[in-house]
Amino acid sequence: MENIKYILDEKEMPQYWYNILADLPEPLPPALHPGTKEPLKPEDLAPLFPMELIKQEVSTERYIEIPEEIREIYRLWRPTTLYRAINLEKALKTPAKIYYKYEGSSPPGSHKPNTAVAQAYYNKKEGIKRIITETGAGQWGSALAFAGACFDLEIKVYMVRVSYDQKPYRRVMMQVWGAECIPSPSDQTESGRAILAREPDCPGSLGLAISEAVEEAVSREDTHYSLGSVLNHVLLHQTVIGLEAKKALEKIDQYPDIIVGCVGGGSNFAGMFLPFLKDKIEGRHPDLKIINVEPASCPTLTRGPYCYDFGDEAGLTPLLKMYTLGHGFIPPPVHAGGLRYHGMAPIICHLLRLGLVEARTVHQLETFQAGIDFARCEGIISAPESNHAIRVAIDEAIKCRESGEEKTILFNLSGHGHVDMAAYQAFFAGKLKNYRYPQKKIEEALHNLPKL
Amino acid sequence: MENIKYILDEKEMPQYWYNILADLPEPLPPALHPGTKEPLKPEDLAPLFPMELIKQEVSTERYIEIPEEIREIYRLWRPTTLYRAINLEKALKTPAKIYYKYEGSSPPGSHKPNTAVAQAYYNKKEGIKRIITETGAGQWGSALAFAGACFDLEIKVYMVRVSYDQKPYRRVMMQVWGAECIPSPSDQTESGRAILAREPDCPGSLGLAISEAVEEAVSREDTHYSLGSVLNHVLLHQTVIGLEAKKALEKIDQYPDIIVGCVGGGSNFAGMFLPFLKDKIEGRHPDLKIINVEPASCPTLTRGPYCYDFGDEAGLTPLLKMYTLGHGFIPPPVHAGGLRYHGMAPIICHLLRLGLVEARTVHQLETFQAGIDFARCEGIISAPESNHAIRVAIDEAIKCRESGEEKTILFNLSGHGHVDMAAYQAFFAGKLKNYRYPQKKIEEALHNLPKL
Repeated sequence: MENIKYILDEKEMPQYWYNILADLPEPLPPALHPGTKEPLKPEDLAPLFPMELIKQEVSTERYIEIPEEIREIYRLWRPTTLYRAINLEKALKTPAKIYYKYEGSSPPGSHKPNTAVAQAYYNKKEGIKRIITETGAGQWGSALAFAGACFDLEIKVYMVRVSYDQKPYRRVMMQVWGAECIPSPSDQTESGRAILAREPDCPGSLGLAISEAVEEAVSREDTHYSLGSVLNHVLLHQTVIGLEAKKALEKIDQYPDIIVGCVGGGSNFAGMFLPFLKDKIEGRHPDLKIINVEPASCPTLTRGPYCYDFGDEAGLTPLLKMYTLGHGFIPPPVHAGGLRYHGMAPIICHLLRLGLVEARTVHQLETFQAGIDFARCEGIISAPESNHAIRVAIDEAIKCRESGEEKTILFNLSGHGHVDMAAYQAFFAGKLKNYRYPQKKIEEALHNLPKL
Repeated sequence: MENIKYILDEKEMPQYWYNILADLPEPLPPALHPGTKEPLKPEDLAPLFPMELIKQEVSTERYIEIPEEIREIYRLWRPTTLYRAINLEKALKTPAKIYYKYEGSSPPGSHKPNTAVAQAYYNKKEGIKRIITETGAGQWGSALAFAGACFDLEIKVYMVRVSYDQKPYRRVMMQVWGAECIPSPSDQTESGRAILAREPDCPGSLGLAISEAVEEAVSREDTHYSLGSVLNHVLLHQTVIGLEAKKALEKIDQYPDIIVGCVGGGSNFAGMFLPFLKDKIEGRHPDLKIINVEPASCPTLTRGPYCYDFGDEAGLTPLLKMYTLGHGFIPPPVHAGGLRYHGMAPIICHLLRLGLVEARTVHQLETFQAGIDFARCEGIISAPESNHAIRVAIDEAIKCRESGEEKTILFNLSGHGHVDMAAYQAFFAGKLKNYRYPQKKIEEALHNLPKL
C-alpha cells in the first residue's frame, strides 16, 4: 500500500466561511412563512435560532469570519487530511487521479460538528441554555451532543424510535457527551402524545421528531432549535471542508475536473464544492463537473419537481423552494440513514436548476461494494452515506480508464463507518437489497404538496 | 472548550524503533522451550515468525530502523496528535498539566496497527502468503486484517466465540478488510474439534483460540502466526508512540513527571514509556514515575507471582518469565476485553521487578466514569481499556490539587470507543459492576503453573 496525503498547517485553517449567496448568478428564491406564505422575515425565526444564524441564513456577504472560539474547537480535528487514493487508482488501472477529503477524524466521526459547533457557539453567545433537535440514525444528534459538551449547553435530542431501538451506538455517544436522548414519538409533547394515542407502537419518523423538537423549543425562552443540514447557514459552516481542500490542492498545483459527494440534506457536499463552484461561476473553471449523488430509493434531485415544500413531514417549518419528493414521503429503509430525506438544500436545488451542478443516483448494493473495495485499497472504512460518493468516484475513474483521460477527481469522505458495521454485516450476510424507484409512494406524497 | 495540541511534521516521524533490551540494567530472563525447558533458540520460532521478527525479539541493538514500506503506511495516520487536556485540568482544578497521546486515529481505531503493519511487512518480505492469529474482543484481529489489506496477505482470525457472537462490529471490520474471521472453537483444527466433541456449546477462550491459530499456522509452509502484544518485538514496534510523544514534548520544553497507561499484554503502554525510561535508567530523570494500570479483576502485576508460565491457556507457547495469574485463569468479563490476560509482557515484568516502573489496579465502574468525564471535557470518547489510563491520570491530577504540586502527567489514549458503545450503554443502564479480587480462581490457576 502506498500513501500520499496532504496536511495543511494549523495556521492555514480557514478564517472565513465562504458564502455562495454573494456569487449566485440569480438570487435564491426566498423561504416562505408556512402560515402567510409570504417571504420569511428574520423575526419569524427568532424563537428557533439565534440572530447571528438568522443573519447568516440571508447574508450576501462573501466571507463570514469564523469566530476564534469556533476555530479553537475545529482545531481538535481540523485541518482534516486530503488523501490521494493512489492504491485505488492502481487497482482500477485508471489514468485518473483520485483525491479525497476525510472528515471522519472528528470526535463524533463525521463532518456534522463543523456546523454543530458553530450553532452551539452562537446560541451560547445569545444566552441560550438549551438546544433541542431531532435525529434519525443519530449522526447529527451525536454531533450536537458533542458541541453541547464543548459549550456547556444542555442538549436534548428526539431520536426516531425505530433507530433509537435498533441503532443504540450513536444514542449512547450522545449520553456520553451528556445529552438527553429520548425516543420519538414521546409523551413529552402534544405532537407526540397525539400520535401515541392513535398508535401506541408508532416507530416514529424524522418529520414527527422535528415536530416534537420544534414544539418544545418554542415553548421555552431559554431554549432554541437546531437543524443539521438543508439551511443556508448550515452549508455555510461546512465550507471549511472545501476551503481546506482547495488550499491543499493549490499547494500541489492541482485542480479537480470532477467533484463528487453524497447528498441527503446536502450540507457535507455543498461544503466541499461551493468554494470551487465560485471558480466555475466566474469562468476560471467553466468545465468543472459537480456530481451530487443520491440513493436511487430517494431520488430527490433526479426525480422530484422543483417547488415549495415543507422541510418536515408535519408541515411546521418554513416553505423552501427545492426539489422534493413530497414532505410526506418516507424513503425505503436503506442503511445510508443520512440520505433518507424528501427534500434538499435550497442552494443545491437552485444550482441544479441553473445547470451549475448535476445529480446522479446509485443503488445500495453497489455503494457497499464500493466502500469495501475502497477500504481494502486505502484502509479507511467509510460510512454508508459516504459510500455513495466513493461509488461515483470509482465509476468516473473507470470511465477515464476507458477514455484514456487523465482527469482529477475529488470527493468528500464525510464520515467513518465504525458505528455502522451492522450495515456492512447485513451486506455480507446477503440481507441488503436494492430498492426500485418508489413511484407510487412518491406520487402520493406529491399530491400533498402545499398549495401556494 | 479550549484546545491545545501538538502535531509533529511528517518528517519528524521516527525512523527507528527504540529497543529497551540495549539499555536494561540487568538482562531479560530468556524465554524457554515449552518441551525442553531450555532457553529458546531462534530456529524454534521459525515455523511461527519470520526471521526478522525473531531477530528483533532477541536483538540488543539500541535503534532498529523502521523500513520505509512500514513508515509509508504509518503515515496514513501518524504522527499522531499529542493533546493537552486543558479542559480536564480546569474541571479538576488541578495545578498539574495533563498531556495525552491519541492513538485512536488509525483506520482500525487503536494503537494495534503500529505492530500489525510491521509484522505483516516482515512476513510478506519472507514470502509468507497467510497469517493466522487469534483475537478476543477483536481489536487485534481487526488491526491485522487492516495490515493484511495493506500488504495483500491472506489473514485468518480465530475469534473467541462469545465475542464473535456478542461483539460483531470488529468481526465485520475484519471482513471489510478481506480477512476471514471464524469463531473458536472451530471444527477446522484438532484442538477445536476436541473441545467441541466434549462441549458442543463451548463459548471459547483466548487460550483455546491461540491453540487453534498456532496449530493451523505450523501446518502450512506458506503460513505464519502473529501475536498482538506481550512479545519483545511487539513492544519494540509500539515505541513509535513514545518516541513521537517525547519529540513533541521536547519542542515545548516539557518532560513528564508521571506517565500512565493501561496494560493487558502491555504493548501500548510500553510503547509509550520505554523511550522515556531510558532517561530514568541513565539518571537524567531519576524520579520519573511510570504507572501500569490494570483492572482489579485481573491484577497480574499487583497480585501475581513472578515466574515462568505459558503465554496461552493450552500450554503451546514458549515459557515466559512474567508476573502471572496462571495460564488457566479466565478473568471476569470486564468490558475492557483487551486487558483480560493472565500474563504480561516480560519486559514490563522485568522492569517492575527492578523497581523501574510501578503498577496499580482500578475498578471497572470508576474507569467508565473517568472516560465519561474525559469525553465531556475533551471531546474524545475513549475505549474501555484506555479509560483505565484516564482514571489514574485523573487520580494523580487530583493528588496534585491536594498537594499543590505542578506535576506534568502524560498518558496514552490507546484507542477510541466508537466500537465499544455497548459497554457504555451497559454502564448507563446500571448493568456493569465491579468485581472483587478473584482469589479462589487465581489460587487454582497458580496451582497449575508449569514445573521447571
